[in-house]
Amino acid sequence: MRELNEKGKLAKQASRKLASLSASVKDKALLEIADALVDRTDYIIAENEKDIEAGRESGLKEGLIDRLMLDKDRIAGIAEGLRQIAALPDPVGEAVSRVKRPNGLKITKVRVPLGVIGIIYEARPNVTADAAGLCVKSGNAVILRGGKEAFRSNMAIVKVMQDSGYAAGLPEGSINLVEDTTRESSTALMRLTEYLDVIIPRGGAGLIRAVVENATVPAIETGTGNCHVYVDADADLEMAKKIIINAKTQRPSVCNAEEKLLVHEAVAGEFLPDILKELSSRGVEIVGDERCRALYPDAAAAEEEDWYTEYLELKIGVKVVGSVDEAIAHINKYNSGHSEAIVTNSYRNAQKFLDEVDAAAVYVNASTRFTDGFEFGFGAEIGISTQKIHARGPMGLKELTSTKYIIEGSGQIR
Amino acid sequence: MRELNEKGKLAKQASRKLASLSASVKDKALLEIADALVDRTDYIIAENEKDIEAGRESGLKEGLIDRLMLDKDRIAGIAEGLRQIAALPDPVGEAVSRVKRPNGLKITKVRVPLGVIGIIYEARPNVTADAAGLCVKSGNAVILRGGKEAFRSNMAIVKVMQDSGYAAGLPEGSINLVEDTTRESSTALMRLTEYLDVIIPRGGAGLIRAVVENATVPAIETGTGNCHVYVDADADLEMAKKIIINAKTQRPSVCNAEEKLLVHEAVAGEFLPDILKELSSRGVEIVGDERCRALYPDAAAAEEEDWYTEYLELKIGVKVVGSVDEAIAHINKYNSGHSEAIVTNSYRNAQKFLDEVDAAAVYVNASTRFTDGFEFGFGAEIGISTQKIHARGPMGLKELTSTKYIIEGSGQIR
Repeated sequence: MRELNEKGKLAKQASRKLASLSASVKDKALLEIADALVDRTDYIIAENEKDIEAGRESGLKEGLIDRLMLDKDRIAGIAEGLRQIAALPDPVGEAVSRVKRPNGLKITKVRVPLGVIGIIYEARPNVTADAAGLCVKSGNAVILRGGKEAFRSNMAIVKVMQDSGYAAGLPEGSINLVEDTTRESSTALMRLTEYLDVIIPRGGAGLIRAVVENATVPAIETGTGNCHVYVDADADLEMAKKIIINAKTQRPSVCNAEEKLLVHEAVAGEFLPDILKELSSRGVEIVGDERCRALYPDAAAAEEEDWYTEYLELKIGVKVVGSVDEAIAHINKYNSGHSEAIVTNSYRNAQKFLDEVDAAAVYVNASTRFTDGFEFGFGAEIGISTQKIHARGPMGLKELTSTKYIIEGSGQIR
Repeated sequence: MRELNEKGKLAKQASRKLASLSASVKDKALLEIADALVDRTDYIIAENEKDIEAGRESGLKEGLIDRLMLDKDRIAGIAEGLRQIAALPDPVGEAVSRVKRPNGLKITKVRVPLGVIGIIYEARPNVTADAAGLCVKSGNAVILRGGKEAFRSNMAIVKVMQDSGYAAGLPEGSINLVEDTTRESSTALMRLTEYLDVIIPRGGAGLIRAVVENATVPAIETGTGNCHVYVDADADLEMAKKIIINAKTQRPSVCNAEEKLLVHEAVAGEFLPDILKELSSRGVEIVGDERCRALYPDAAAAEEEDWYTEYLELKIGVKVVGSVDEAIAHINKYNSGHSEAIVTNSYRNAQKFLDEVDAAAVYVNASTRFTDGFEFGFGAEIGISTQKIHARGPMGLKELTSTKYIIEGSGQIR
C-alpha cells in the first residue's frame, strides 16, 4: 500500500534522529504542541463537528457520538495530558545495568527507543494526541491509524501536532496519520515489517483477534478485560459490597471494570441477595448460574458464552463456587489476563490467589478499577497489556522502549 | 493437530504447578536429570547412532553429521550444562519493584514464568537438554519441536529427562517433544495460541521468516547475525587485525561471527591488502566492492545480495567507506540487528557509533564474538534475540519470565 510505504519510510528516517534527540528538545516540543492545540481549538472543533455530523447521519449511537465529541474543555484536557507527559522523566539513555567483566570489557545495558510504533485504535480522538505524545517522549516515531468516524478530528489534531512539533525541533516524519481508513489499511499496517518495530492495537476483542491472526509485526495486545471479583468465605462482606459496587458501576465501559462475580457458597446465602438487589437498583442486568438463581430468582440464566464475555456495560455474570480453588480455576479458564480480585480475611487464601491467578494485576481487598497508569503512579499509559511478553499491565514510557548492550573494549578477542 | 493439542493441554496444566514450584525442587530435578543423562549414556548413544546412520544414508553433509553426533564427552557436557543451570539463581518470585501508594495500596511487580514455551530448532540434539533445562529452571513448561534428523536422539534425551525429572518432583507434562517432525507440525505449533504463551525459533533465516509469516503465538526471533566490523580512520590497525581475525575465523559457523568488513578510505590502502591476505591465508573467501577490489584484486565482486547475507562460513564481504556516517548508514540498512563493532581511537566516532547503530550489541574495540550469555556473565542462554520487544541480545533465565502486579489493599475503591 503506497501511503503506508511512504509514511513508513519517513517514520523510519525520523526515528533514527528521534532516538538521539535530547529530552529538552522533546519536552519543549510537547509543551509547544500543547499550546498550539489550545490556540487552534476553533479549528479542531470545526473539523470535529464534521465528524459528528457524519456520525449522526450514519446512525452512530449517542454513546459513541459522546466519545467522539471534542469541546474546549476536552481539548484543554488533551493539552494538559501532553504537559504531564513532558514532565515525566525521559526513559531513553538510562543504564539498566552495567558490569565490568574479568577480561576488562565494560558491558552496559542501555534503554533505547523501539523505533517506529504503529497504533490502531477506534473512535476516541484524544487517543491521537496521547499516543503520539507518549511515542515522541520515548523517542519513537509513530504511525497512527484511527477509526474513520474520527478521521477529520484526528487529521486536525495531527496537523496541529506536526506544524508545532516540527517547528519546535522534532524531526519531520515523527508523527504520521494513515489517511486510508479502510480495513485494508489496518491489515497492511500490521504487516509493515520493513518499517514498523511494534504494533499496538487499542480496541475491542475483534481488533485484537484481527491482530493475532494477521500481524507479522510484533504486537502488544491491550485492553480486553473480563475481570472477576471473588468473595471468599472469610470476606468482610461490607467491604466486598463496596468493592463490587465500585468495580462494576463506577465506570462500566472501561477494561478494568468488573464483569463477573464469584461468591463462596458459605456466604452466598447471606451475601448474594443483598448485593444483587443493590446492583439491580443501580441498573445492572444480572445473569447467574443455577445456584445463584436459586438464591436470587430475578437473575437470568447465564450461558457458557457469558463467562468469556467482556460486557463493558451495566451487566454482570454471577456464579457460586465451593472453594477458593474452584474460583481460581474458573478465573484461569475464562479470564482475559487483565485484573482479578479476591475479597478475604484469610491469609492463606489471599496468598494462594496472588500466587495462582494468571493475570496482569491480581488484587486482595481492593477494586479492579485501579489497574491504570496514573493509579499505579507511572503517569500516562498507552494501554493495559494483557499479554505476557515485553510488558504486562499498564504500559507507560518505559514499556515503549527496548534496550541495547554497548560494550566498551580495548582490543579484547576470544 | 491432535498431538499438539494433547501436549499443549498437558503442558498448560503442568505450567500452573511449575509456576509455584520452589527453586529447591527444580534444582534437585535438574541435578538428577544431569546424573540420569550420564547414567544412560549408552542408551542415548545407541539412539543417536540410528540418527547418524539415517543421516549418512540420506546424504547429510559431514558438518551436519558432526553437529548431530553425541559421544560420552558431549553427553557429559550436556549434563554439566544442566548442573550450571541448577546453580543459577531462580528468577521467579523476585520483586522487580514495589510502591506504596498514597491511598495505602501496596503494588508489587513480581517476576513470574511465561507459562508454556514452544521451541522450534534444528539439528543439534544438545539444544533439547539446554532449552528444557532453562525452561524448567524459569518455571515454564516446554514443548520442543526439533528437526527430524535428530529425532531419535531428541526422543532419548527427553525420555531420560522425563523419567528422572518427574520422579524428582517436576509436574508431568513439564517437558514435551513433538513426535511429528513434518513442516506442518512446526507451523501448527506456531499457531497453538490456546496453549502456548511464546514461541522461540532457533535456526536459520528460513525458519525465522516462516515464524514471522505464520506465527499467531507471540514470537521472539533469535539468531540471525549479519555482523559488521568497521575499521575507522583513527583505528589502531594492529588491534583491528586481531579483532577481525578473531571475529571472522575463530568460529565462523555461529551467529556472532563477523560477516562484513567496512574500512575507512583513509586507511584502506594501508590496511586492506594486509588483512585480506591474512584472511585469505586462513581460508577465507573474499568478496568486495569496487574500491576494495582496486586495492585487492583477488577479491571477487560482491553482489547487492551479499550485503544482506549471513554466510556462516569462511567468507567475508568487504567495503570501503568514506566516513563513520556512511559506515553507520550501511550497517543500519543491511544488518540483522545482532552485533556490530567499530575499531577506533576517536572518542567522538566511538560515541556516535554506540548511539546510532541499531543492534542488540554494539562494540568499540572488541570482537563481536562476545555476544553470548556466558561471555556477558549471565550464564546459559536460550538464544540471542535480534528483535526489540521483550528481550534483546542474549536471552537467559530472566528473559524467560514475565511479570505480574500484585496489589494488596484494605478495601480501597475509586
